[in-house]
Amino acid sequence: MEHNLHHTIAILTRTPATLNALLRDLPEAWTLRNEGENTMTAFDVVGHLIHGERTNWMPRARTLLQFGETQAFGPFDRWGHLRESQGKSLAQLLDELARLRSENLDELHALNLRPEDLARRGQHPAFGAVTLSQLLATWAAHDLTHLHQISRIMAHQYRTAVGPYSAYLGVLQCAGHSSP
Amino acid sequence: MEHNLHHTIAILTRTPATLNALLRDLPEAWTLRNEGENTMTAFDVVGHLIHGERTNWMPRARTLLQFGETQAFGPFDRWGHLRESQGKSLAQLLDELARLRSENLDELHALNLRPEDLARRGQHPAFGAVTLSQLLATWAAHDLTHLHQISRIMAHQYRTAVGPYSAYLGVLQCAGHSSP
Repeated sequence: MEHNLHHTIAILTRTPATLNALLRDLPEAWTLRNEGENTMTAFDVVGHLIHGERTNWMPRARTLLQFGETQAFGPFDRWGHLRESQGKSLAQLLDELARLRSENLDELHALNLRPEDLARRGQHPAFGAVTLSQLLATWAAHDLTHLHQISRIMAHQYRTAVGPYSAYLGVLQCAGHSSP
Repeated sequence: MEHNLHHTIAILTRTPATLNALLRDLPEAWTLRNEGENTMTAFDVVGHLIHGERTNWMPRARTLLQFGETQAFGPFDRWGHLRESQGKSLAQLLDELARLRSENLDELHALNLRPEDLARRGQHPAFGAVTLSQLLATWAAHDLTHLHQISRIMAHQYRTAVGPYSAYLGVLQCAGHSSP
C-alpha cells in the first residue's frame, strides 16, 4: 500500500508499549543473549531504537525540510547505542524509549505535514534522494524489523529445547537479518 | 539454552499483552492484509493462536501425561481458526486469547510439574516421540514465531512505501515462514 501518515503514526505510537509488554521483567536469559558473534541482544535492540530516536528519524526529517537535497543527512552510528546503554537496566531503556518516542511524535504532529511536504526530497548519504514520505514509512518499518529481530533472537535461545519441533518453527529458519 | 519452565511461562504470560499493545485499534490496513495468496493476516494469526490454546498445547500435554507414548496426540487443524474467528472483531479475539491463555497457565501451574515429568514422552503424529519439555518449549517458541510473522506481514504492507530503504530492512528479506 501507499504510505499513509496516519498509519505510520499508528505503528510508531504502539512500539514502546509493545516492547514493554514483551520485555519488561523478563528473565535475562531472554534479554541479554544474542544470536552469536557480532549480533544484538534484545537489550541492544532497545538501545538501538533509542539511538535512532535521538539521532536518526526526526533529526533527518528536520534536515530534509530545512535543506532539501542540498545537505546530506548526518551520519547514523549503528553501534552508537552501546555507549549510551552502558550501565542502564532494560527497564530504564524501555522508559527512555517511551519518553523519546512520545516527544518525537509530538514534534511530528506539530509539523502539520501536508501531502506536498511528504513529497519533498532529502539526500541520504548512501541512497541519494529520498522523500520525506519514504523516511517516515521507514521509521515505522524499522520498528517492525526490530520487533521481528527480537522475536528471532529470543526464539533462537530455544533452538535446542524445542527438539524436533524446530522443523515447524519458521522463525528458526529466518535469514532476514537487518543490517544490523 | 536448556528448557526452563519458569522461562517458558515468562513468555507465555506476556504474549497476549504484547499482541494487545501492538494490534488493538490499529487501522485495518495493517491487520486485515496478508502477504499474498494462502498467507495469513495478523487477524488470522491471533485466531490461530486461540485455536492452539483450545486444541493444541494443554490438550496435548494432558494426553502425554495420561497416555505417554501409547496414544498419539489428537490432530491440530492449522486452518481451524478460520471458522472460529468468523464474524468476530480483532478486539474480541485479543480478549479471547488473553482469557484462554490465562486459564491454560492456571492449569499448567496446577500440574506442579517436576523435572521427571518434563522428561516424559508422548507421541507426536508426525515426529514420533517428543518430551513434555519439548512440547512446552515449543508453546513459547510458537508465540515467538507468530510475533515474528505478524511483524513481517505488517512490514510487507510498506514494501513499496519505504523506497530505497528496503535494502536495509531485514524483515523484507525474511523467508523464515512458519508452516503456516
